[in-house]
Amino acid sequence: MIELLSSYKPKLTAGLRDALNHISEDSADASLWTADVIARLLDYCSRGKMIRGALVDIGAKSVDDTKADKTELEAVCIHVGAAMELIQGLLLIHDDIMDQDDLRRGRPSMHTQYTELAAARKALEPRRLGESLGICVGDVAGFLAFDVLSSINLDPKLTKALIALTSRELVYVGLAQMGDVFNAGVPEDLRAEDILKLYRYKTGRYTFSLPLMAGALCAGLGKQALGQLGEIGELFGIIFQIKDDEIGIFGASEKTGKPQGSDILENKRTLHRLRLFENLGDEERQRASGIYGNPAASAEDLSWVRRQLYESGAMHEIDRALHEYAESCSKSIREMTFLTPFGKKALEGLLAYNLSRDV
Amino acid sequence: MIELLSSYKPKLTAGLRDALNHISEDSADASLWTADVIARLLDYCSRGKMIRGALVDIGAKSVDDTKADKTELEAVCIHVGAAMELIQGLLLIHDDIMDQDDLRRGRPSMHTQYTELAAARKALEPRRLGESLGICVGDVAGFLAFDVLSSINLDPKLTKALIALTSRELVYVGLAQMGDVFNAGVPEDLRAEDILKLYRYKTGRYTFSLPLMAGALCAGLGKQALGQLGEIGELFGIIFQIKDDEIGIFGASEKTGKPQGSDILENKRTLHRLRLFENLGDEERQRASGIYGNPAASAEDLSWVRRQLYESGAMHEIDRALHEYAESCSKSIREMTFLTPFGKKALEGLLAYNLSRDV
Repeated sequence: MIELLSSYKPKLTAGLRDALNHISEDSADASLWTADVIARLLDYCSRGKMIRGALVDIGAKSVDDTKADKTELEAVCIHVGAAMELIQGLLLIHDDIMDQDDLRRGRPSMHTQYTELAAARKALEPRRLGESLGICVGDVAGFLAFDVLSSINLDPKLTKALIALTSRELVYVGLAQMGDVFNAGVPEDLRAEDILKLYRYKTGRYTFSLPLMAGALCAGLGKQALGQLGEIGELFGIIFQIKDDEIGIFGASEKTGKPQGSDILENKRTLHRLRLFENLGDEERQRASGIYGNPAASAEDLSWVRRQLYESGAMHEIDRALHEYAESCSKSIREMTFLTPFGKKALEGLLAYNLSRDV
Repeated sequence: MIELLSSYKPKLTAGLRDALNHISEDSADASLWTADVIARLLDYCSRGKMIRGALVDIGAKSVDDTKADKTELEAVCIHVGAAMELIQGLLLIHDDIMDQDDLRRGRPSMHTQYTELAAARKALEPRRLGESLGICVGDVAGFLAFDVLSSINLDPKLTKALIALTSRELVYVGLAQMGDVFNAGVPEDLRAEDILKLYRYKTGRYTFSLPLMAGALCAGLGKQALGQLGEIGELFGIIFQIKDDEIGIFGASEKTGKPQGSDILENKRTLHRLRLFENLGDEERQRASGIYGNPAASAEDLSWVRRQLYESGAMHEIDRALHEYAESCSKSIREMTFLTPFGKKALEGLLAYNLSRDV
């Protein structure tokens, strides 16, 4: 699966470059910043895995094998995929400002790039100016995404539906993101259903449902079937996120690029944390409370937490839930009679990828 | 003119409420924040003058008097106007974060509202969390705007063109805004053409061209005529902004709600500042340099600057330029043969309003 996803990266990068250069020429007069912004966005967006962009064409090919001109549909999907990557750019740029992350994908994050530029130009408050410019570039990336979407070579009726789908899903993502940001900043606990809602909307609908549905819509898939595709995206998201939490606790730092147990040190309100605290006795729960969110926690503390996750039965519970989600995912794939053979294989591959990934 | 503009406010507020409540019901499941965000945005957006929203329908009525069902076109324009006000919400919310403004339209700015909420919920860093949530709400407002635009009751072909127009103009605005933000943060001077470019794009195309063109497009106006309407919007913007700068220097604080001479104290790179510095002798220029951007400047210093603006000939130069812009604006209005009688009157009224306003 990972090979299929990766195979789209060069095409998406080229599609993004085409779209942005086109806009750049038209917008050169608007600001001295046009060329600078476009170049930075192009570099920024093409450094990611571009999974969302890839899933658009995979979505289209998953539901259509009747279209005469496949090349044309693929070109449309690459175009839409480029827009998805610009949206991802917007969200990551703003995310890094909120989290005060100076690095992204091995390079300075966007606001850090502008902080450096501001310092070189002798700004009074380089960091503040860098963050402000970062907020602006994120906004521009969002506007560019809709510019790209609305210039697509597709029937206007489908284009309208595509933009309606995209903007609505992004409203959901933005609202879910607010919940996530808020939860990270206040000392309140979450219920399992709130955590799962976050996984469903922030990861599921955004990373999987939206691009898959967008591609399928371009291929002409009807409303009801689109809904089914959207729902399976939510399941993918839950599974992806539970595995992500597992990696955040057990993942080797050589692979993840973060210190082992980083989610524990950052006190992330994951499903693992919730189930652990539910399953511990009073005394152990108190010890765990002293470790979660404590940047000074020792390696021994962290292994103790990892051991407790198994001994308390929390991991067993989570694995059982994961198994159930995977089961209902497989069932849904079987029930989606509109899938092409490629589509069946791709969705099964996506499920297997989400279940097995260790980074 | 101001009466005509104001007459739209109740309709736009109702249109915005309808659009947002509709989305709110569908999005309730996405996040615990849905109702909170929608209510705050509704309040925030309807506190402004809603000029951009009003100009959409004025744009439509300026070019169309043949449409059988005028009520239907007006309903479409109010819908589009609501989207324009959401975009304005996005830009102001983010602007207030960049400028660290705690107040907006007589109430706490959006990030300040969330800072208060975060403090009440015992956040570790309420201000940081408030700003983060403000960034998110701004993003959501932008997504909502495109959601509203794409759910419009209009021919899909026109809808596609409308979204293409809107997103492209917003790319220009975002890029121009970056220039403005950057200029305010670094100690560099601007050339007259850079200042005018900013007035043209940030004020002109955004406040006037975009909404007028959007309405005219909904009424079916062709590409070339749309271009003419866009160009006159740039002239409106330049005139509006030059008058705005004048108000920032000479305006009475009872009317503007800001200290008299606030633009001088903040060292804004206005056309007035540029022309003043160009026209002063070395000694006076040095004194002016010590006053601009000096928050401790005295009332006497400020009157000296105001006097110098006249005595140096700077005001004369600016007034002459203003006169020329107004002339070419009138000429353009006369040349736009596609204007309805209402349209001719409305654009002339807009010109007179921009020239005469003192607040």
